[in-house]
Amino acid sequence: MKYTFLDLVKKIDVVPYYYNPKEHKSFRDSVYTFVSHDGSFRLGYMLPMVAEEFKKHSDVVKVDDKTREVCIKPSLNTLSARNQAFNKIARIWREKCAFDHLKGWRDELYTIYDPDKKPYMRLERAFCPLLGVVMYGCHINGYVIVPGTGELKLWVPRRSATKPTYPGMLDNTVAGGMGYPHGCLETVVKECYEEAGLKAGYVTDHVTSVGVISYFYQYSKGEYASEKGFVQPEIEYIYDLKMDPDTIPHPVDHEAQDFTLMSVDEVVERLKNGEFKHNCAGVIIDFFMRHGLITPEDEPDYVEIQNRLHRKLPFPTR
Amino acid sequence: MKYTFLDLVKKIDVVPYYYNPKEHKSFRDSVYTFVSHDGSFRLGYMLPMVAEEFKKHSDVVKVDDKTREVCIKPSLNTLSARNQAFNKIARIWREKCAFDHLKGWRDELYTIYDPDKKPYMRLERAFCPLLGVVMYGCHINGYVIVPGTGELKLWVPRRSATKPTYPGMLDNTVAGGMGYPHGCLETVVKECYEEAGLKAGYVTDHVTSVGVISYFYQYSKGEYASEKGFVQPEIEYIYDLKMDPDTIPHPVDHEAQDFTLMSVDEVVERLKNGEFKHNCAGVIIDFFMRHGLITPEDEPDYVEIQNRLHRKLPFPTR
Repeated sequence: MKYTFLDLVKKIDVVPYYYNPKEHKSFRDSVYTFVSHDGSFRLGYMLPMVAEEFKKHSDVVKVDDKTREVCIKPSLNTLSARNQAFNKIARIWREKCAFDHLKGWRDELYTIYDPDKKPYMRLERAFCPLLGVVMYGCHINGYVIVPGTGELKLWVPRRSATKPTYPGMLDNTVAGGMGYPHGCLETVVKECYEEAGLKAGYVTDHVTSVGVISYFYQYSKGEYASEKGFVQPEIEYIYDLKMDPDTIPHPVDHEAQDFTLMSVDEVVERLKNGEFKHNCAGVIIDFFMRHGLITPEDEPDYVEIQNRLHRKLPFPTR
Repeated sequence: MKYTFLDLVKKIDVVPYYYNPKEHKSFRDSVYTFVSHDGSFRLGYMLPMVAEEFKKHSDVVKVDDKTREVCIKPSLNTLSARNQAFNKIARIWREKCAFDHLKGWRDELYTIYDPDKKPYMRLERAFCPLLGVVMYGCHINGYVIVPGTGELKLWVPRRSATKPTYPGMLDNTVAGGMGYPHGCLETVVKECYEEAGLKAGYVTDHVTSVGVISYFYQYSKGEYASEKGFVQPEIEYIYDLKMDPDTIPHPVDHEAQDFTLMSVDEVVERLKNGEFKHNCAGVIIDFFMRHGLITPEDEPDYVEIQNRLHRKLPFPTR
């Protein structure tokens, strides 16, 4: 099967929109809402099996099966109290192997925000999809304009065959999660070195911040087959890195097995074959749209793709 | 007062999101929903005074004050039947001066789409805001990279003092509505000549399609003071036009009174002063974000701005 660009976007923007009341309701009926300590805002959506497990921690949350809410206790009214309480639960669940997903434990904290865009909680990265809270990353499009012809080509790595997630699939030039306390540009510089051997000075000289993509992902199949349905609202900060033809990225931490400089036609073909990791396909479609390589003249789903790659999530964000 | 970039975005993305149930409900209670002939989808939101006027056309629509819906009659089951019926009403209302807004009559048809992205209806442009249907335009950012310094500057026109709408305000280099039967690039080429004297060959050689912005506008004050509250969901196709320093745009149709090549700092200052037409401010903010001139490091509302400038509208679109 050949995917359309919209098919690829639908693989990451999965949760139904409220405009489709039937599908939206059926989704909402399948999850519990994770609610702030003062009841004033929602933090995420979680599966009933996670809510069930939370019932054993009535000092931290109140689980209401009628309203289908998991509410943080009012007494947890500071950032540090919440950090302590929830990361303790994460460690307990990890130790007792409550969820396979926690096998991906990273020792990396992700920040969750309140409606004023202030840090509300910091949680172990592998714990976040269990709670369905918003996660953040940075993705970098490394590209070259071929001298003479002016042709645009993209540096495309293949993920290592031994990576636990999406082994062997094609990826963005560089990409990484935004762990605390790193900012966007800082994460970009760090990951460009770790994943592609690019020096900090080179990256800051050549990189441009160009926007975000955001979407509402739901695991169709767990990264661990036993667990599907975790919800992952996601925001990826996007950067373009215009590289000169003489700079060749090379794997340092071996998350990538190799890099190939691909023509746009080759990238399009591999996208349509489904060879790219899902969210990386979204990043490249956004890149192609910003660079006039996908246009309203030739793409019938142009507006829908643009909108769904910039979805406003129903939770507070950075 | 100095506006933030988010303040400027909020001036065009006005209608409350469903995530704010109270504001959203109060908005929904203030409008009637315009519904397709088969009841399967919504076309727009209209004010009660428009729904009231529609009651005199029971051969074309059924107005239900209980459900607050204006439903197209099932018999109007073809594109041409709907075109005929609604444009007849538009002409009648114009003749009897039912709404001041129709004084802006353009003799220009806008296409309304169904959920399959097929044309559903074509309506006089000035009639569209009365029905609250989605409208389309093209906006072009003409910019210059100054040789030597590499500084980016923008070509900014001032709207003619005699224009009926937003007289004397600053604007995008070129912008125009997408009237039937013109496509996006065709509209760009046409408007670039009419508004800025740029030849077709020059435009097609230098222009790049870079995305859309979309937002849910509501008139806070009518363009005609007696009528406020019309709803205008809008999609603008965005193009960047990289111009060489020797090409100087000049008004042809005199919609603009003059063009100034402005530094980024000057544009930012004038944006923050509120000197730009509202939706043109949104276009420039999007431009600045794509060009790394507004970054996540220095803009606290970065994600919210990106999302609100790409709002998925609750109606079918192209």
